Amino acid sequence: MDAIRWQGTSLSLLDQTRLPVEEVWLDIEDYRLVADAITRLVVRGAPAIGVAAGYAYCLAAIEFQGRPDFEERMSEARNTLAASRPTAVNLFWALDRMDRRREEYKDSPDLITALLAEAVTIHRQDVIMNRTIGRLGCEVVPEEGRVLTYCNAGAIATGGVGTALGVVRYAVKRKKLQMVYACETRPLLQGARLTAWELMKDQIPVTLITDNMAAALMAKGQVDVVLLGCDRMAANGDFANKIGTYSVAISAYFHSIPFYTVLPSSTIDMSLPDGSGIVIEERAAYEVTHFAGVQTAPDGVPVWNPAFDVTPHHLLTGIITEKGVIYPPFQENLKKLFGSSD
Amino acid sequence: MDAIRWQGTSLSLLDQTRLPVEEVWLDIEDYRLVADAITRLVVRGAPAIGVAAGYAYCLAAIEFQGRPDFEERMSEARNTLAASRPTAVNLFWALDRMDRRREEYKDSPDLITALLAEAVTIHRQDVIMNRTIGRLGCEVVPEEGRVLTYCNAGAIATGGVGTALGVVRYAVKRKKLQMVYACETRPLLQGARLTAWELMKDQIPVTLITDNMAAALMAKGQVDVVLLGCDRMAANGDFANKIGTYSVAISAYFHSIPFYTVLPSSTIDMSLPDGSGIVIEERAAYEVTHFAGVQTAPDGVPVWNPAFDVTPHHLLTGIITEKGVIYPPFQENLKKLFGSSD
Repeated sequence: MDAIRWQGTSLSLLDQTRLPVEEVWLDIEDYRLVADAITRLVVRGAPAIGVAAGYAYCLAAIEFQGRPDFEERMSEARNTLAASRPTAVNLFWALDRMDRRREEYKDSPDLITALLAEAVTIHRQDVIMNRTIGRLGCEVVPEEGRVLTYCNAGAIATGGVGTALGVVRYAVKRKKLQMVYACETRPLLQGARLTAWELMKDQIPVTLITDNMAAALMAKGQVDVVLLGCDRMAANGDFANKIGTYSVAISAYFHSIPFYTVLPSSTIDMSLPDGSGIVIEERAAYEVTHFAGVQTAPDGVPVWNPAFDVTPHHLLTGIITEKGVIYPPFQENLKKLFGSSD
Repeated sequence: MDAIRWQGTSLSLLDQTRLPVEEVWLDIEDYRLVADAITRLVVRGAPAIGVAAGYAYCLAAIEFQGRPDFEERMSEARNTLAASRPTAVNLFWALDRMDRRREEYKDSPDLITALLAEAVTIHRQDVIMNRTIGRLGCEVVPEEGRVLTYCNAGAIATGGVGTALGVVRYAVKRKKLQMVYACETRPLLQGARLTAWELMKDQIPVTLITDNMAAALMAKGQVDVVLLGCDRMAANGDFANKIGTYSVAISAYFHSIPFYTVLPSSTIDMSLPDGSGIVIEERAAYEVTHFAGVQTAPDGVPVWNPAFDVTPHHLLTGIITEKGVIYPPFQENLKKLFGSSD
């Protein structure tokens, strides 16, 4: 299952705003439309955004190649792409990789080829990383495990089999997965629309709940482990993820249920000492007051609609990455992971 | 503001399934349609269900009066009404009151008048109780108080000014209310559709959030007190309320934010030692997978959809009733409230 396909001179994206009712692919040749697709959540999930941004960078380079103002135009394109979503660190990480390659191949006839190779590498590395994450993370799922997940950290949020759902897929392979409880994830229902869809498509047992049912389900003893994604992690393990993650974290803590975030290490931003520095995107009131054009709240009601929240590291049991499962003390162990000497 | 009006020989109900987009009143002469209206959530909220059931009982008595099988028909009507919602204790409490009156006035020409008087009394007592609850409960709201509420424990959930929102209305009157944060309350969005509507209509400042934002809002220090309703309380203070209440309770506890449930004492079922005996209604998957006819989840996805959850008493700061605010130890203090001697 994939949601991002490079077509040689265009980028095909599975329009995730249309799922689960319709499977529509958009074929995009203009990097500005990729930026727009990221903003509109046609493509979403931190790793997938990084992959899409790499290809969008190539679309810009193809568009501007040979022009005297190539450098300015590319800076412009980079800024447009960087502004599409403010929270996902993978976006900046991917753009930085593309920038470095552009610098290296400046004035080279191989520039476009080198950029394409880099974008494909970002994509392929994500596929491999997902597999490794799934294999390593599988150890935290008990026999007949019942996993609660949140939002969509699946194949369609990444380039590969997914992060949290990558672990789920490995647990299925090892025959130790009993059930995935998918929280619907308001306001945009990525859990209901995407996770439930993706798991059903792969015939993995899934039960859908509204977000406010997670605690009651835990109280009934029906959740063995929580596995969910991460949009940005600070050096101490504090992490931003879809709004509501913090609530699930508190409930898991309260019920002594292991709680893991699953991420490629590129999602970790070692330049941020803790979660207080993570920029939280606030989105339009309309997302909360309407669904699919149907009004669900009174006209003009004030709304608070942050897209993410920050979960403090002390609520985490562990961090599952392609480099292994990291346990507390997180600050120290993340530093080791990145081979930092200070 | 009201949502239930007795019209002499029929009962008018504000159709709460149509709010906030349309204000439609249904005029009902058949008790079976009142039972159906309770099941369909046209009228909802434990106190309002009790009030509506009292009037529905009168509609049945008017229909069957003078018939030789009057007693059997009334038992049938009672059972139909009792089966309309399984969790709200006020429903059974109101029907028991009506039954007692029917027994007292058996074979009397004043039976219908006596039943009507009882139904009106249940309604009027609820109005007075709400006022008393509001006045007594107001003490727990600090100056410039920011209240978080859940579902709708408002005027349209009761016969009067509401329970939790009755307290809010008194706080407004005393000029100490800064903001009400209304959780939207999935799946049926009573917070978004009803609480936001009711508060805006009374020009009380309200901000709408999705349920999964409550914990993040608390972490930002923006909630001073949680006030919400109750559908059924056991003798030890454990209580059932709209699904998601338990999640809010855990988050409030985690952030040391005072957490109160607000209820008429008729909602307390002293025959239940604790919350484990409370029957939890499970509702149709469709409520989670669709909204207003729009499909939001894949076809055939399994769903868990309990209408309520049980919050253990140890997460409660206090219980606000028309008889005063009750603090721990709840078992002992609830017993005193009911004047029990054992």
